Amino acid sequence: MKAFFIAVGSELLDFKLNTYTQILSNKLGEMGIKLNHEATVEDDFDEILSATKYALSRSELIIICGGLGPTFDDLTRKAVSILTKRKLIFSNYIYDFLKQKYRFKRLKKNLKNQCMAVENAMLLENPNGTAFGEIIEFNGKIIILIPGPLNEWLSMWDKIKDFLSKKLNSKKRIYSVRFKIADLKESELEKALKPITKKDFTILSGPNICEFILRGYDKRKIEKLKIKVEKIIGPNIYGYEEDTIEKKLGELLKQKGKTLSIAESCTGGLVSSRITDIPGSSAYYLGGINAYSNEIKTKMIKVNKKTIKKYGAVSEQTAYEMALKSRKIFDSDYSVSVTGIAGPEGGTEDKPVGLVWFGISGKEKTLTEKRIFLKKDRSYIKEAAANTAMFLLYKMIK
Amino acid sequence: MKAFFIAVGSELLDFKLNTYTQILSNKLGEMGIKLNHEATVEDDFDEILSATKYALSRSELIIICGGLGPTFDDLTRKAVSILTKRKLIFSNYIYDFLKQKYRFKRLKKNLKNQCMAVENAMLLENPNGTAFGEIIEFNGKIIILIPGPLNEWLSMWDKIKDFLSKKLNSKKRIYSVRFKIADLKESELEKALKPITKKDFTILSGPNICEFILRGYDKRKIEKLKIKVEKIIGPNIYGYEEDTIEKKLGELLKQKGKTLSIAESCTGGLVSSRITDIPGSSAYYLGGINAYSNEIKTKMIKVNKKTIKKYGAVSEQTAYEMALKSRKIFDSDYSVSVTGIAGPEGGTEDKPVGLVWFGISGKEKTLTEKRIFLKKDRSYIKEAAANTAMFLLYKMIK
Repeated sequence: MKAFFIAVGSELLDFKLNTYTQILSNKLGEMGIKLNHEATVEDDFDEILSATKYALSRSELIIICGGLGPTFDDLTRKAVSILTKRKLIFSNYIYDFLKQKYRFKRLKKNLKNQCMAVENAMLLENPNGTAFGEIIEFNGKIIILIPGPLNEWLSMWDKIKDFLSKKLNSKKRIYSVRFKIADLKESELEKALKPITKKDFTILSGPNICEFILRGYDKRKIEKLKIKVEKIIGPNIYGYEEDTIEKKLGELLKQKGKTLSIAESCTGGLVSSRITDIPGSSAYYLGGINAYSNEIKTKMIKVNKKTIKKYGAVSEQTAYEMALKSRKIFDSDYSVSVTGIAGPEGGTEDKPVGLVWFGISGKEKTLTEKRIFLKKDRSYIKEAAANTAMFLLYKMIK
Repeated sequence: MKAFFIAVGSELLDFKLNTYTQILSNKLGEMGIKLNHEATVEDDFDEILSATKYALSRSELIIICGGLGPTFDDLTRKAVSILTKRKLIFSNYIYDFLKQKYRFKRLKKNLKNQCMAVENAMLLENPNGTAFGEIIEFNGKIIILIPGPLNEWLSMWDKIKDFLSKKLNSKKRIYSVRFKIADLKESELEKALKPITKKDFTILSGPNICEFILRGYDKRKIEKLKIKVEKIIGPNIYGYEEDTIEKKLGELLKQKGKTLSIAESCTGGLVSSRITDIPGSSAYYLGGINAYSNEIKTKMIKVNKKTIKKYGAVSEQTAYEMALKSRKIFDSDYSVSVTGIAGPEGGTEDKPVGLVWFGISGKEKTLTEKRIFLKKDRSYIKEAAANTAMFLLYKMIK
């Protein structure tokens, strides 16, 4: 089954990003439905009507998001009503629901529209707003209307999923596993996994992290493959599905009751900021020093002046001292350091833009690691270095 | 004139966000062209053909992005060739251009497709890739083909703009000013500007920053309005168009030859990271301390233990000491401090989630400011606090 997604909203053609396509695509993908067309149209009746007509000529499943609010003059419902030749009728069911929810005595004018629904539509309650969703079956096709706000339509998704699952051959459900991987090049990943996987996978690349997604109709086969993948690239897997490195690292530190400090140079505070994106991170994160200048590296983190003079600020020796000494200064169980060249200026032949040294210090040992990030983009290098720093620490603690 | 935008790319229906709609919408808007439909289709010939046909039935201007690469089997060009009934012909002009650029002797197979163009198309050179853009006029309509990567199609934009400007009635050009505003509530902004503006404006809200966009056909009127707006909300304007606070703050520090240090608590390194997003920030940013725990505030920033005990970590007094003492420790000209409650835990009746104290210290004075950010979202509060810290410092230095 193929799906056509129509997003209604002038703001989506002006300043607001349409982020729903990917969410919907994933949710449909889980059921084996492929989203193969997305259209965004302004809040205009003729546009919605025309786009929906076109969608009906192309797909079996049309999902229309937005244009259902009380201020929208019912554009979406009206368009679907015309195209399906079904009346818009006043729904006592919706009326009673809204009456109970908002405790009104007489129907307010702006809510009257919200009680209208396409004849014979299956209604989807909205716990987070006034616009009901609707599922309309028409000439062997399915039209689903969902309200614009994310929390409103997500709250209806289970019902939509149930409905679509029943319509689909149940054997056709797609099973998937999303591996979260760090510090492994896409080419190495492909090479490592090619012998065991076929074409049914996707790799999404980020700054020295990536996602590897296995998909298939055969659940047991996917589970077997999952184990095989873990055997081959296990050390580089930091999580699954929605996991982030900062979340996994935080869980690990919390679970072991350990504390952390950070000494950053080229990432300029990004590692600390990412760590503290996690609610409750104050349980394990004590603090960090962003030592952008050499003076601050020696003064605040007590890196030996001779070390910087002899080896430079971007060196194994400096990274080592930064991690070790920051752990001692902060009196934390662990510390991680990052020093590198984020560019665009400052690179040399020996030390090119993208070179980053890491120090990872625990009470038992202090290690160093070197990486060269080839994409010469400042924000990419910062993100790649931050991901790597957190992952290297995660590996040491684990 | 209305425009229809088609983005070609299966990845845009799967995992990759389509961020071009807003960029294109802005660029077209400057010329008075309204983008009123966007469609994303997979890399499939029939889909591209059908979507382009539909677009031709709806709009005078169709912009198709992607599907021009050497590995794409020429999908977009072929579809346009069929719909316009014009042949695809081998262009010696493109051939010579690519030959000179890539210095090949014989034409490589994968570049052969790249030399094909729709008959009578105006060709747009691509300094950043192999796919030429094309402008095709057909039955009073305009079809523009642009390559997928942003830097490739942006490099062609000036030529496209010239072409479209000539086609348009020059009186219809839209003039716009985009004010970058900080530390002013949307409601206050609206109230302040309502007396002088009509409906032709847009406000885009961010975390304690916003954009106010004036638009109109009358250039002189817009210029007059701009001056009026500056008179009313001048102190809250930190820049225009693509400016960011970190960029403007960096320019100011560089220009005055002054240095900066930062003492962060609830933002956890975010202010430092944002400051160091700017290339060359090492010229003015010395470093910072992310003091997440109270011990680190007293130990590293030398905040008086009594101050924290008496007033708490989130207090005017602690913010004051953090800024003043960090300026001294780092020996910088300026320092800014942030201490607050990012949530979701940790709020009390007196000190709710969203309360943030700032300290701003220069050699002449040290100030404090208090803000309460009402949106109870951790990342929003972090971003709002970071924006405010940089803006307050910007105001002091200016």
